Amino acid sequence: MNVRGVVLERVGELSIRDIDIPGTPNPQEHEVAVSVKTVGICGSDVHYYKHGRIGDFVVKDPMILGHEASGVVTKIGSAVTHLKVGDRVCMEPGVPDFTSLETMQGLYNLDPDVRFWATPPIHGCLTAQVIHPATLTYRLPDNVSFAEGAMVEPLAIGVYAAARAEIQPGDVAVVTGAGTIGMMIAFSALAAGCSEVIISDFATAKLALLANRPGLTTVDLNRQSLAAIVDERTAGRGVDVFFEASGSDKPYDRMTDLIRRGGRVVLVGMPQDKIALDVVALQVKEISLTGTFRYANVWDRALKLLGSGKIDLKPLISATFPFEDSIAAFQRAAQQRPSDVKIQIEL
Amino acid sequence: MNVRGVVLERVGELSIRDIDIPGTPNPQEHEVAVSVKTVGICGSDVHYYKHGRIGDFVVKDPMILGHEASGVVTKIGSAVTHLKVGDRVCMEPGVPDFTSLETMQGLYNLDPDVRFWATPPIHGCLTAQVIHPATLTYRLPDNVSFAEGAMVEPLAIGVYAAARAEIQPGDVAVVTGAGTIGMMIAFSALAAGCSEVIISDFATAKLALLANRPGLTTVDLNRQSLAAIVDERTAGRGVDVFFEASGSDKPYDRMTDLIRRGGRVVLVGMPQDKIALDVVALQVKEISLTGTFRYANVWDRALKLLGSGKIDLKPLISATFPFEDSIAAFQRAAQQRPSDVKIQIEL
Amino acid sequence: MNVRGVVLERVGELSIRDIDIPGTPNPQEHEVAVSVKTVGICGSDVHYYKHGRIGDFVVKDPMILGHEASGVVTKIGSAVTHLKVGDRVCMEPGVPDFTSLETMQGLYNLDPDVRFWATPPIHGCLTAQVIHPATLTYRLPDNVSFAEGAMVEPLAIGVYAAARAEIQPGDVAVVTGAGTIGMMIAFSALAAGCSEVIISDFATAKLALLANRPGLTTVDLNRQSLAAIVDERTAGRGVDVFFEASGSDKPYDRMTDLIRRGGRVVLVGMPQDKIALDVVALQVKEISLTGTFRYANVWDRALKLLGSGKIDLKPLISATFPFEDSIAAFQRAAQQRPSDVKIQIEL
Amino acid sequence: MNVRGVVLERVGELSIRDIDIPGTPNPQEHEVAVSVKTVGICGSDVHYYKHGRIGDFVVKDPMILGHEASGVVTKIGSAVTHLKVGDRVCMEPGVPDFTSLETMQGLYNLDPDVRFWATPPIHGCLTAQVIHPATLTYRLPDNVSFAEGAMVEPLAIGVYAAARAEIQPGDVAVVTGAGTIGMMIAFSALAAGCSEVIISDFATAKLALLANRPGLTTVDLNRQSLAAIVDERTAGRGVDVFFEASGSDKPYDRMTDLIRRGGRVVLVGMPQDKIALDVVALQVKEISLTGTFRYANVWDRALKLLGSGKIDLKPLISATFPFEDSIAAFQRAAQQRPSDVKIQIEL
Repeated sequence: MNVRGVVLERVGELSIRDIDIPGTPNPQEHEVAVSVKTVGICGSDVHYYKHGRIGDFVVKDPMILGHEASGVVTKIGSAVTHLKVGDRVCMEPGVPDFTSLETMQGLYNLDPDVRFWATPPIHGCLTAQVIHPATLTYRLPDNVSFAEGAMVEPLAIGVYAAARAEIQPGDVAVVTGAGTIGMMIAFSALAAGCSEVIISDFATAKLALLANRPGLTTVDLNRQSLAAIVDERTAGRGVDVFFEASGSDKPYDRMTDLIRRGGRVVLVGMPQDKIALDVVALQVKEISLTGTFRYANVWDRALKLLGSGKIDLKPLISATFPFEDSIAAFQRAAQQRPSDVKIQIEL
Repeated sequence: MNVRGVVLERVGELSIRDIDIPGTPNPQEHEVAVSVKTVGICGSDVHYYKHGRIGDFVVKDPMILGHEASGVVTKIGSAVTHLKVGDRVCMEPGVPDFTSLETMQGLYNLDPDVRFWATPPIHGCLTAQVIHPATLTYRLPDNVSFAEGAMVEPLAIGVYAAARAEIQPGDVAVVTGAGTIGMMIAFSALAAGCSEVIISDFATAKLALLANRPGLTTVDLNRQSLAAIVDERTAGRGVDVFFEASGSDKPYDRMTDLIRRGGRVVLVGMPQDKIALDVVALQVKEISLTGTFRYANVWDRALKLLGSGKIDLKPLISATFPFEDSIAAFQRAAQQRPSDVKIQIEL
Repeated sequence: MNVRGVVLERVGELSIRDIDIPGTPNPQEHEVAVSVKTVGICGSDVHYYKHGRIGDFVVKDPMILGHEASGVVTKIGSAVTHLKVGDRVCMEPGVPDFTSLETMQGLYNLDPDVRFWATPPIHGCLTAQVIHPATLTYRLPDNVSFAEGAMVEPLAIGVYAAARAEIQPGDVAVVTGAGTIGMMIAFSALAAGCSEVIISDFATAKLALLANRPGLTTVDLNRQSLAAIVDERTAGRGVDVFFEASGSDKPYDRMTDLIRRGGRVVLVGMPQDKIALDVVALQVKEISLTGTFRYANVWDRALKLLGSGKIDLKPLISATFPFEDSIAAFQRAAQQRPSDVKIQIEL
Repeated sequence: MNVRGVVLERVGELSIRDIDIPGTPNPQEHEVAVSVKTVGICGSDVHYYKHGRIGDFVVKDPMILGHEASGVVTKIGSAVTHLKVGDRVCMEPGVPDFTSLETMQGLYNLDPDVRFWATPPIHGCLTAQVIHPATLTYRLPDNVSFAEGAMVEPLAIGVYAAARAEIQPGDVAVVTGAGTIGMMIAFSALAAGCSEVIISDFATAKLALLANRPGLTTVDLNRQSLAAIVDERTAGRGVDVFFEASGSDKPYDRMTDLIRRGGRVVLVGMPQDKIALDVVALQVKEISLTGTFRYANVWDRALKLLGSGKIDLKPLISATFPFEDSIAAFQRAAQQRPSDVKIQIEL
């Protein structure tokens, strides 16, 4: 079908134009058509824009960007029952092979054939309309705006990390890294049962955005010691859960010292290289550790937490641009201003 | 040792007097002495007062009542390191055999030889001083009062039920029964990750106390249908978790209809008789069900949730009496006024 | 397509004839065509044959019977990669909506729209050829015969029950009921980590088939007390896991007495009526209980346990009939001879 | 009390002599006295003998060696109910502080104050009599010999690792390292539900001892590729569980390649240095990883698996020496003959 979208033509060059993409404008049996209303710009969108690739994923042909979207259902397939035309929705951007072994096991995020918006060669959603599986399209609660709906994608990463951490009520957690994902993890961990989350970063401006959130302790690594604060807050025992969200190798240095016996680690940030891990410390303290990859089965949970007010993301929307100014939006996002969290585009 | 305490002499007769109880006034190696400051009156205290027995537990000899207590450490045993004289604390009232099989497995609440305050023939804590194992004595956060510290006992039942429910972030739960324990479960379930808790009772005055708690939906069974509200709040799917806290057999009638496929039930209220359970419904929906007995390993968690402000119990303290008016306190508690939740005694 | 099959025309009347059934003889993209080799007769097949219905499932139109099948792949759909023509396979008979909420969560057996072979109005597999989703078609290990492959269906119920029991290595289990499913659970529980399984029934001939299986203790309820044997084998503590596989209400009578504190119950047998359950005993011992419905994600596991020799089902195949004698096979199955376990039909 | 024991006087010098050790010859309330019958020599005993230290644990004063023991109860404390004089038993060698936080949580192996036999400065059990907590003293099944009873200590490490691996029925596992511990893990993993265990080592003689064990595939790394065999046995998917039991850093090189998406790693072998770990691979495949330290709550489980015949350790007892030849026994153990597994001493 022919759609108007924000197209990454090649490294550093964006255009807003019509482009032919695979598929028809009408939903199949289990699909819906959605008129896109709000799209957030993710760090990965900016990375493709500036570098043309992330790891093995290389942009070879013009590709529509964007994978954080909300919108309104305009058509529904014949088998769709839980949605109707006019529903306000947001969309989970990774479409697995629904019959794969991983999907059948409830781990559809690990299906090796998953097709993820704006991951080459798959087009993204910064376009007027998308056709999407109904099962990956979620109705927004009435009190959740399109802007918040377009924040569910990064929030889902946090909720999933919190779910995988098997948080027990009253746990104390550390989150290393206060970027968008670190923030999402911190909010999710608090909503998921932590009594306190200690979040650390060198980015003072980001930490300032987190001031006065109940249960959240910020650690400015320019002038504070994470270890000292963990010691103080846990009477020297160490935290129950440790989330790594910076992608740096630094947090690994003293990681095991900061975790209690029997504690858990969830690794979300992707480091460049292999990490030197103190295996004996993992053993003596029986620390368990898991990596998470995107999310599965948490999208509706993230929406419920937004709808109930347990998580408030509105303060993280730093600027909103109209669709025709999408290139300016990307330029702003590419500046990575210290106090910017999320730049969004409205259609 | 000789102590002054609130003594249940026989059914319906209380006195405040000196009484000789087993033990010495000095803590052993792993024990502490605590000067008691606040004691809450539990339904079981009132039940012993009015009926002299609960099931197989019969009051045969004069017994000091009370098992919900906070206080100040006055002496410590030689092996105690995590507490010091002057610490403000609260005490977990069930002392297991520390070498029993159940204790070694982390299920010390299930040790058949547990000695629990004010469960005959074990004396309670409504007395000037108690000697207690240090490991079952917990430091209060600075912002938690003695009154709140004496609320940790019932709260721990709620936190434990929430922990056993294996709540996933964003779960929706039902709690049937809005007595003290139902309230504690509701608060704990919200703190432990639920986006919403629906609590039902016929006791309109109790539900009124829960109005305007974020995430909490009250259902007055005199005029509302729990099933209808569950349907509405879960788009007909049923809740993720169902807590029974009333002890009535009524909530079991339609229980499985209100729970989603793969959902969980935690039974806390103790019914009089056997319950007729729809096993086929448990199978077709693969609902799992567990009973809980008091609590284990959650006392510090309850305190952290109080200290962080995630749970606020202050509004549930209905009246406070000085120690010398303890009998009046019991008489007030025995009235079971519709809007009373917790009556406390200060020493 | 037109196929030759064993057709239940109406209650008590079977015929072997050609019948038109929905679908084409060619597999779709994600499907395979399988030439059926062996089909086992299940109790439910016999029940439809004799009574025309099971609960709400009523046979209104002629229906091919059979849901326990193995065969050889004859054609594969364009997207199928893990199977090829000529592969020896067995087939999982329940086909869910692959995009349903339950499937996405890994609970595809709970999808309310699952289409299950020989459950009206869905035709079964007692026919020359079936078209089936490739993801529900499993390659047989070289040392697993077609006859054994056709036993995977009932075995999967046992493996799934064992998986849901969260067996810890060395657990002792009870299985009440030594019918086909009880046997499958007993073998699976031993393979899954139990050191001992105690299986009870009144059916002496069935128990005789289980003699001399290492780790298996049979209890003939005509002359032995299950409670006495549990006491003896567990030094009075009770078993770790209790599987109910009889569908009778009798095993519930003393169930909680036979289970250790913190033990687990898995309910597989479907009783006629509601069951009176001792909730207080579930609480005081913190016993957890779950129902299971068929199986999910265990078919390949059952095959590995067969292939590795940990489970041997060959002695349970009581008689084998050629396809043209299928009606005689059903008549034999309907006799329910005391020492018959499984009657199979070969194509 | 004064006892006769095998005393490590200093590096390389053993003597059999009387020595005064702390305590009295009579058991306290919760203790038993055991006449020692069989003691196995562990690699750590040999290491102390040859090097005088393991990490931070340094032998400064003469110390009795041995921590793998079975015997006969000769006296019981006043509170002991589950044992009687004359019982054949084996003893768990690590005695925690029974009131520590870790013990109360069921993680008594992680108690930092645990006192472990033959870990300086704590004396071991290579002596005529030991006084031991009754709760850590386990009755041998009638068909388990003293020699087998003295093998429970290393077996418990394997059973615990298997329990922590959360094995699902039919899982395929790798064990890297076929020393005593690797063997114990392999047997335990099979007993705990694995359909197949692939065990690799360069030690051809050790692998030869494992030939013809059902379900066990040996990989001689001198001439075979573990990766190739994993590929073949799992159709390229990777194993469900990976146990590292060699203490070498080599198995980490391609570890994540050999594990399926959603798989688990249990680290038992203690490497010398930090290990370079591919965090991104852990994330993309959502592999979870845990270290284990000794064991907790599995001693009775190991005994049940021995008693039921699911695990047979008799072939691993390579030589048995009388007590008076204990020094020769240590010299034999110190030779580390390729086909020796366990050297035992009989009293």
